[in-house]
Amino acid sequence: VTGQPDQPAVGAATAVVVGTGLIGTSVGLALTAAGWTVWLEDRDAENLRLAGVLGAGHPGLPLSDPTVVLVAVPPAGTAQVILDLQHTYLTSTFSDMASVKSQVKLDVERLGVDMARFVGGHPLAGRERSGPGAARADLFEGRPWVLTQQTQTSAASLAVMGEVVRACGAQPFLVSAELHDRAVALVSHVPQVLASLTAARLADADPELLELAGQGLRDMTRIADSDPGLWTDIISANAGPVLAVLDSFTGDLDQVRAELREVTAVQGIGLSKDVGIDQSSSRPVDISTDLPFMRALIERGNAGHRRLPGKHGAARLEFSVVPVVVPDRPGELARLLVASGNAGVNVEDVSIEHSPGQAVGLVELSVRPEVAGALAQALRTGGWSVHA
Amino acid sequence: VTGQPDQPAVGAATAVVVGTGLIGTSVGLALTAAGWTVWLEDRDAENLRLAGVLGAGHPGLPLSDPTVVLVAVPPAGTAQVILDLQHTYLTSTFSDMASVKSQVKLDVERLGVDMARFVGGHPLAGRERSGPGAARADLFEGRPWVLTQQTQTSAASLAVMGEVVRACGAQPFLVSAELHDRAVALVSHVPQVLASLTAARLADADPELLELAGQGLRDMTRIADSDPGLWTDIISANAGPVLAVLDSFTGDLDQVRAELREVTAVQGIGLSKDVGIDQSSSRPVDISTDLPFMRALIERGNAGHRRLPGKHGAARLEFSVVPVVVPDRPGELARLLVASGNAGVNVEDVSIEHSPGQAVGLVELSVRPEVAGALAQALRTGGWSVHA
Repeated sequence: VTGQPDQPAVGAATAVVVGTGLIGTSVGLALTAAGWTVWLEDRDAENLRLAGVLGAGHPGLPLSDPTVVLVAVPPAGTAQVILDLQHTYLTSTFSDMASVKSQVKLDVERLGVDMARFVGGHPLAGRERSGPGAARADLFEGRPWVLTQQTQTSAASLAVMGEVVRACGAQPFLVSAELHDRAVALVSHVPQVLASLTAARLADADPELLELAGQGLRDMTRIADSDPGLWTDIISANAGPVLAVLDSFTGDLDQVRAELREVTAVQGIGLSKDVGIDQSSSRPVDISTDLPFMRALIERGNAGHRRLPGKHGAARLEFSVVPVVVPDRPGELARLLVASGNAGVNVEDVSIEHSPGQAVGLVELSVRPEVAGALAQALRTGGWSVHA
Repeated sequence: VTGQPDQPAVGAATAVVVGTGLIGTSVGLALTAAGWTVWLEDRDAENLRLAGVLGAGHPGLPLSDPTVVLVAVPPAGTAQVILDLQHTYLTSTFSDMASVKSQVKLDVERLGVDMARFVGGHPLAGRERSGPGAARADLFEGRPWVLTQQTQTSAASLAVMGEVVRACGAQPFLVSAELHDRAVALVSHVPQVLASLTAARLADADPELLELAGQGLRDMTRIADSDPGLWTDIISANAGPVLAVLDSFTGDLDQVRAELREVTAVQGIGLSKDVGIDQSSSRPVDISTDLPFMRALIERGNAGHRRLPGKHGAARLEFSVVPVVVPDRPGELARLLVASGNAGVNVEDVSIEHSPGQAVGLVELSVRPEVAGALAQALRTGGWSVHA
């Protein structure tokens, strides 16, 4: 521990960030921007120097107790770093950034960390890139930041972490370590494994086959481009919850495969989309190639996807769309919106489909469902080409 | 078949597009933009009208033989539509747009379609939205368009379809129906099933768990928001190749689960990250929680993902990156690029990491690997903050 001459005034919010990778450096940038004084520590001198130059804080450790010590090192080393620095800073609050919380909780309890001053933490933000060079002050803006509390955790420590989270622009979520780990297994760790399993199929495929790949597959395997060491550690630390989700995934997958085996057997004897003969009654029976389980699965997938929060969420579904074909001439869109306003309808959103060289475009007006019919009628009366 | 008074001049390229959904209407828009005369047909009068108004062609069928008849109806109805219109147009070339080719080949052979005038086709383009309103003239721009040839297919028919593909701005790929179907199983149909299986896990999950979801999961399940009827048909028609890929996926998945079961058993007896005792020799043995199969799988996924063509492909890896911290002042970036030019180095790409309120930004100069060292040295000498 080396002292710095430039100690801040007593009472100002101060933080030590240990580990200047993507997450640590981003926390440093965010807290500095919020007016905190930040010190940085890292075993990697080059990362530490770059984080400092980028404005994430001062390399080195303060002489007096900081408000908070934030540990952003690999999960396996987290508990030891906390224990060591609790011996140096006797009043500071401590938190970590590890993406599995039960394991860290177990580790800090075993090592004898002072639990009154410890709050488990996990900001749910990241990028495909790692290291201090990828850090951003706004990385946590609007993202969830999980805090896990033990019975011994003091109210003061929890309040300090609430300030850290808000200073970073994130939303605090107070949940148990166990609930957190089940949640990230479902929404992060299992999707990671499945992306790798999907992308692994491409590793030794005939190059000719890959030329037909499109954006869907690229999106689906984007997170497969991830660090093997980091992710093996994370999944190992959360093995139980990950296994539980993979087991239920496998249950569905096995049913899909069983159904496909039946269909291929039927197709193999030339009965695709045809009708067979029931030998006992000599009446035709329907040999289905309809895949009822597959259809129900896709419907469940539709429903699951729509439950995700964010841009593609449920909010859009509340509106009805009135499609209008509009000539590609200056002023036509404005004229359409004026006509909608004159019809007494508030247009909630506008989207335009128009490809280069096309003489007309399709304008889609999103409106409240109860006024969609009246708007379509009013526009038709006004001479617009409405396709409701 | 209804005649139109506005027949084009003899010799001009003419097309009939049957089915005015997303694909058919987009083909109509693209061919019209390329100077073709296009007729449109659809059982759905409203779709047909909208496609016509959007400029995809003239609703109705021509009296004389068009150059080509393009059938963009659901796969199950494709062969019958081709057969019927071959009786009307005795010299036209016919093609389809179905996303499974062996099944259509089987169907047209069974029905007795004139194979000399038939070329199987599949433009690999799409959108999450369907219907004529989502159509775009540039939907096929730069995308692969598979053509499948039978021994009886005439050279003239193949040449006609080559013209159609080029007029739409797509790239023709001449492959067998079997190779096509194996390719789309791998790059499209299996990813579709896996996205549904992944998203299905979210359908009945505790809403609290879903609040932690991020962009990775949204991207991974984007294609799960797909039409159950359409996709059940596609997967049923390509059941064999889809099953083969899912079987090899399951082989990997089973190994992942077996490895996780071992780790959870070890963790269950409190030996996580610890060393056990070999009872026979009383010496400590390493009880690994390292997941070697998982690590190798993630590495295979990295390799598979990087083999995908397109934006995120291998091209970027050819360059080395020289990171430079630059003050957020007007003219600094220009000054850096001038300094790089003075060092005799051609900068291939520039990316800037800078978050709001940050006093400095990180500029990453992509250059040929053999000049990266010299550039870093020259910039350091010139007083720049280089972090190579």
